[in-house]
This record gives sequence, structure tokens and C-alpha cells, in this order.
Amino acid sequence: MVDAAQIISRLAESARLANRSLVAATDAARSDLLRQIADALINQSDRILAANAEDMARADESGMATSMKDRLLLTRERIEGMADGMRQVAALPNPLGRTINARTLPNGLELTQKSVPFGVVGMVYEARPNVTVDAAAILLKSGNCALLRGSSSAASSNVVLVEVMREVLAQSSISPEAIQYIPSDDRSTVTALLHARGEVDLVIPRGSASLIRMVVDEATVPTIETGAGVCHVYVDDAADLDKALPILINSKTHRPSVCNAAETLLVHEGVAQTFLPVALKALISAGVIIHADAATQAIAATHSLDVMVATEENWSTEYNALEMNVAVVKDVIAAADHIQKYGTNHTEAIVTENAERADQFIALSDCAAVMVNASTRFTDGEQMGFGAEIGISNQKLHARGPMGLEQMTTTTWIVRGTGQIR
Amino acid sequence: MVDAAQIISRLAESARLANRSLVAATDAARSDLLRQIADALINQSDRILAANAEDMARADESGMATSMKDRLLLTRERIEGMADGMRQVAALPNPLGRTINARTLPNGLELTQKSVPFGVVGMVYEARPNVTVDAAAILLKSGNCALLRGSSSAASSNVVLVEVMREVLAQSSISPEAIQYIPSDDRSTVTALLHARGEVDLVIPRGSASLIRMVVDEATVPTIETGAGVCHVYVDDAADLDKALPILINSKTHRPSVCNAAETLLVHEGVAQTFLPVALKALISAGVIIHADAATQAIAATHSLDVMVATEENWSTEYNALEMNVAVVKDVIAAADHIQKYGTNHTEAIVTENAERADQFIALSDCAAVMVNASTRFTDGEQMGFGAEIGISNQKLHARGPMGLEQMTTTTWIVRGTGQIR
Repeated sequence: MVDAAQIISRLAESARLANRSLVAATDAARSDLLRQIADALINQSDRILAANAEDMARADESGMATSMKDRLLLTRERIEGMADGMRQVAALPNPLGRTINARTLPNGLELTQKSVPFGVVGMVYEARPNVTVDAAAILLKSGNCALLRGSSSAASSNVVLVEVMREVLAQSSISPEAIQYIPSDDRSTVTALLHARGEVDLVIPRGSASLIRMVVDEATVPTIETGAGVCHVYVDDAADLDKALPILINSKTHRPSVCNAAETLLVHEGVAQTFLPVALKALISAGVIIHADAATQAIAATHSLDVMVATEENWSTEYNALEMNVAVVKDVIAAADHIQKYGTNHTEAIVTENAERADQFIALSDCAAVMVNASTRFTDGEQMGFGAEIGISNQKLHARGPMGLEQMTTTTWIVRGTGQIR
Repeated sequence: MVDAAQIISRLAESARLANRSLVAATDAARSDLLRQIADALINQSDRILAANAEDMARADESGMATSMKDRLLLTRERIEGMADGMRQVAALPNPLGRTINARTLPNGLELTQKSVPFGVVGMVYEARPNVTVDAAAILLKSGNCALLRGSSSAASSNVVLVEVMREVLAQSSISPEAIQYIPSDDRSTVTALLHARGEVDLVIPRGSASLIRMVVDEATVPTIETGAGVCHVYVDDAADLDKALPILINSKTHRPSVCNAAETLLVHEGVAQTFLPVALKALISAGVIIHADAATQAIAATHSLDVMVATEENWSTEYNALEMNVAVVKDVIAAADHIQKYGTNHTEAIVTENAERADQFIALSDCAAVMVNASTRFTDGEQMGFGAEIGISNQKLHARGPMGLEQMTTTTWIVRGTGQIR
């Protein structure tokens, strides 16, 4: 522990010093830097792929699951994707120095609230090495120095990716210490990072529920959780069922492993007999395992559709897979009650043609995003026009929903006077 | 611990249920409620003063310090002050339902980001019973239910103040459970509140450094710290010294016990010989004890002014009293370095007539508020035109500086479509 704490202190201190050069640079200079990093990633592809091959060999030896190996794998195409991401972030508007508030007080004081960087931001993430590059892009553009702690399984790739980025920084006015790699040999560096209060301004965890839980329990530094998504699709009795079916299928099956995929379908009892036979058939033929309440079981039985009995635990489970809970509810209030009990305040969707009903659902939903007649999959920085995202916040503090460049800034009040006192 | 956790769970659950009635009410209804509470506080003054007399008697028995007793004491005038505060908050604009972002995406999705309440907010505070009423005003107006945990020394006053407010709620459409009093017999309820993750949306501590430290170490619920203020006044060589002196005296002596009072004076070496003799004399005659660096000691000696030798610890001490550190610095960068090393990112002031120098100081200051030619005492919700404040955030996450109604809201994204899928 002492060693890990010292490592983090040293990295954070050099990042803090580097922050002045990053903030002193213009937005054009920071964006240029990102474009140069994009070029370097392409030029250094062989070196990056060689490092990734080491990670893949270790993954083979340890018998890593195929889906995990796919997340770990880098290819020329994926490196080009990272480089493209860098260029896209470079082209986004400057998130720093935005005027958020401005007013002149009766005593003549001029108040301005401006966006400024956090300073030193830690990222703790798992598996995919592209996060190393994507996070660095957003953090550098928003004037933050990055302490990157990826998973040990991607250590070789991450080390080289950070090296390539630092080599570009070394040729610029910005200190290479603006990007730091945190050794990932064991969890002690994560623990130390979470206790580096006063040295690190913010830590963002991205990964498994156990990682998030560890962060919540241990952290004394400020954190933004990117958490679980138990998202619901509620099909109202005033729904256009021709819209409801594709929204349901897309929400569940488009990419089941991500947090904005739906886990539970709630159907108004008024349309259950019409909609559920069609919906269940479509879900099952898409390979979805159904966990059903009693009313849904009855409907499934009359149509010879195969469903499982939903357990109490199922309703709050994020499957990350082709499994879905289905329940019939009395009305929009019952749907909201169910969501409040089992949901995770991430994304909830209502399908209805009744505007009042939609407003009622919005008012009763306590979540980051409410979809009215749209797929839950739209809670996403790129889809919502943020240009890029560093994660999706599942908390109410600071940022809620997708986090882009603006969310990676804090503010300062500038008060200009001519000698005013109280 | 089990008992305290059960108490908090029960209170939080009933507050969560009450939240629907609070959010369903219009802003006019919530504001009306605050005005009725103001009237009730006046009408029930005798009852409130009788309860306060119990607290004062216990304070006498326990030998409480005079300054603490003054904070605990309620008078007719102070109750009128609380009632006025309620009415002022009632008159402020509705912080809910503000449109923060609105855009239409190329695929036709209409995005709106709106302000919504957190839900259930806990307050942990010390001594002054008026916080019970001030916090309730801001929380109710911003649609949040309040779990109030004051100090045990003010228990009798707090219980009656909460009773009076709940009696008014009982006559309205809003559930009285929107305001809850947390028993303050021992610290177990604070610990339980800090661990009520998923039940409480936010906890705001207001009080001593040890309370804040406990919150940082223990909390698994989201918190906003209202922390220490080691604020600096930097007098530049381009300062108008006629402005510098009143700014310095006001920053230090106007109300030394609060977080936006200054603790350290930094003087550019170019004006030290001119400014320091005058400044030290004025501070000393205002009763301020001086902790000086070597250069300041030398100047003080030549003018027969009595100063102490500053220790390393002094530079990072929040005195909350008539004591001040004084140092001579080479330039604005040296001032910023000193502030970065010893400051608490709260409020920093520069006195200068040079606009570039001011901008440099602003860029180098990593704090909630920077004052240019104005007293540090202006970092205050009322002074900055927020109408009221629930505390001053000393963190970078969510809210920085004074927290008024707007800061007591979070946001939700509302996405309206016509069947869009990905």
C-alpha cells in the first residue's frame, strides 16, 4: 500500500505541474495535438499491434473467454477507429472558457462564471485498450491531465498507447506528463488512486458492477459513477403498436451488453392481449429468453410460447445478454412504481400516442433519460450529438447521462470590482 | 447501528413517497407553502422560544462557550429573520423545469435537458437552529424532501421548528413527510445517513472540519462538501493601495469566523516597503495577531510592529479568528504557487490595476471564486444574487461556490421521437 500510494502521489504531482502547460495552451494547440496523436497512432500501428499480440498471447494462456478476447483485440481497423475518434474530438468546440453566467450586481461587481478544467482526472477501466486513447482525447481537449489505470490484461497495449501519445506531447509545448500510465500489476494502485484526496480532482470508473461498488465504498476522492442500467420499455394502452415492436426489439437486441439496453418490458393491461403474443414471438425468435410475470405466462401459454417464471431477483438484474423480464401493469402509475422499485435511474422508455400520458411518465421517472417513442439505445453521447463521450453517468451529482467534453469541466466565479467591500 | 439504519430507512422511504406530492405541486403552491410557514413561525414564536430555552439551559449546564451559546440562541428578532428568509426564497424564480439544453437531432429526435429535483436530500449541520428553517426553505422550493440532522445541543429547538413546518404541510396538498427530523441523540444516525445509498440522493454536511472529514471518509451516498476556506489576498505591485487596505481589512475582520474570510496576505516585493507598514498597523489595531515570514518580520521590526514568526502549519490554517499570515512574494506566479500549496480552492483575491496581471492570477487560481479588486467576503449566495444559499461548495463536482436553488437540482434528458431506433 505504501508503495502504491507513493506511485500515485508522484504521478499526480507531475500531472498537476503539467496541467499549467495544458491550460496555458490555446484550444487550437490542444486540438492540433490530438490530430498529431491520431497520425502517430496510424504511423505506429505495427508497434501497437505487436504490444497487443503480447496481451492476446497472455489471454490465450489464461484461457480468457472469447467475448473478452474480442474486446482486448486491436486490429489496423480498430486503430484507425481510435485515430478517427481523436480527430473528431479535435474538431469539437472548445469546452473551456465558456461563460455560464454573467451579471452585474447593484454594487457594481461584475460576476462571470466560466468553465475551467478539473485538473487531474483518474480513469479506472477494464479490458478494451481503446478506452486509453478515447479518454485521453476527451481529457486533453478539456484541459485535464489524465491518470490512466486500465486492466492488467491490456497492460502491454496500454503502455505502448500511452508511450505513443507522450512522444507526441514531448514534441509540443505541453508537458508529456499530462498523460500518465498507472501500473496495473495489482489492485493496490486503484485503492491508492481512490484515496489520493487533494492530489487527484476526480476519478471516473468504467467497468463491472464490482469495480463500481469498490469505488463507492472506498473512494475519498470525488468520483462520477458510470453504473448499471436496468432500463425499461413501457408500452402504454395508447401506444402505436407498430412503433412499439421495433422500439422493443431494438432496445433489447441491438447491443445487449451495454448499459442502455432494455432489461424489462412493461405492458399496459389494455393492450397486453394484442401486443404480447406478437412481442414475445419476436423476442423469442431473436433469441431472447423471457422471464415472465403471471399475466404474461398466461398469455404465453395460450399461444404456446415458451417463457420462464420471473423471480424477484430477475426484475433488478442487468442481464447484459439476450434475456428479458416481461410484466403486465395496470397503468402508467403502476409502471412508474415498478421502475422506481427495480430500476437504476438510467433510461426509461414509454411508447404512447397520448401526450399527457407521456408527460405523466416523464414526471414520475427519476432517471438520466426518458425516451418517448424511441429506443433506450439513444442514451449515448455520440447519438445525442455530444461528439464523444467518456462514459454515461448514472448519478445525479454533476453530470447525468452521457458525459462529453462539457461534463469534464467545472466552473469558477470571477468577480471584478473597483474596491468593493462588505 | 442496526437501529439507526432502520430509522434512516424508514424516514427516507416516507420522504421518497412524499416527494411525489411535492413535485406534483406547482411552483406557486410550493411558494405559498413557504409563506405560510413564515407566518406559522411568527405565530408560534412563544413555543419555539420555550423549546430554545430548554436547549440554552442544557448549554449552561454543560458549560458551553459563550460564542457557541450565541449561535444556539433564538430571539423574536431571529425568528423574524427566519420567516423573512422563507418569504425571500418563496419569491425566487422556479428552479424546476428550466430548459438547460434543447436540440433536434438529424434523425428527428427532439432532445430537451430539464432541471429536476434530487429527491431526498439529507443535511447534517451543527449548532445554529436557523439552518433547520433555511435549509427546509431551499429544499422545498427546489422540490426536494429534507432529512434534517442538526446538532444534539439544538435538539429541542429543531424538533419544534420541524413540527411547526410539518403542521403547515399537513394543511396543504403536500405530505408533511416532505420534512423529516433525524434524531440527534448520538452519531449513529449520521453514520447511517451517510450509508443510506439508494435511499438518500444527496447529503450536504455543514460544520466543523472533523464533520466534513467524517463525511469524506465514511459516505457511500453522494455528498457535497462545504469545506474549509484558507483564502488569500494578494496585493500586486500594480495595486491601487487605497483600494488594497480596505479590501484587506474587510476580508480579514468583517466576520472572521466564516469560510470566506481571508487567512493570508501576500504582498508583491515591489510594494512591500510601502504597503506593509500601513497594512500591519491597521490589522494590529483591529486586533489581528500577525504570523509573518522573514521579509515581513524585517519590515515590522523597522516600524516597531509586533508580529509572530509564521510556522509551516500557520500557512494552511483556517483561523476563524482575528489572526493572519503575512508573506512577501516575488511576483504573481510566486503568489499563485503559495496559494496552490497552502490554499483550499475556495476564494482568492488579487488587488491590481493591471488587467493582464489579473487575468494571469485568474488563470493560475484553481478555486471556486476569484476576486479582482474586491473583498473575499463576496463569495456568498446572497451577495452574488442567488437570493439564498444552503452552503458554499468547496468541491469541483456539481456545484462550486455558493449553492442556491439551481444547485439543488439535477437534470433529466427528455428524448421525444416518432419510433426511432438505432
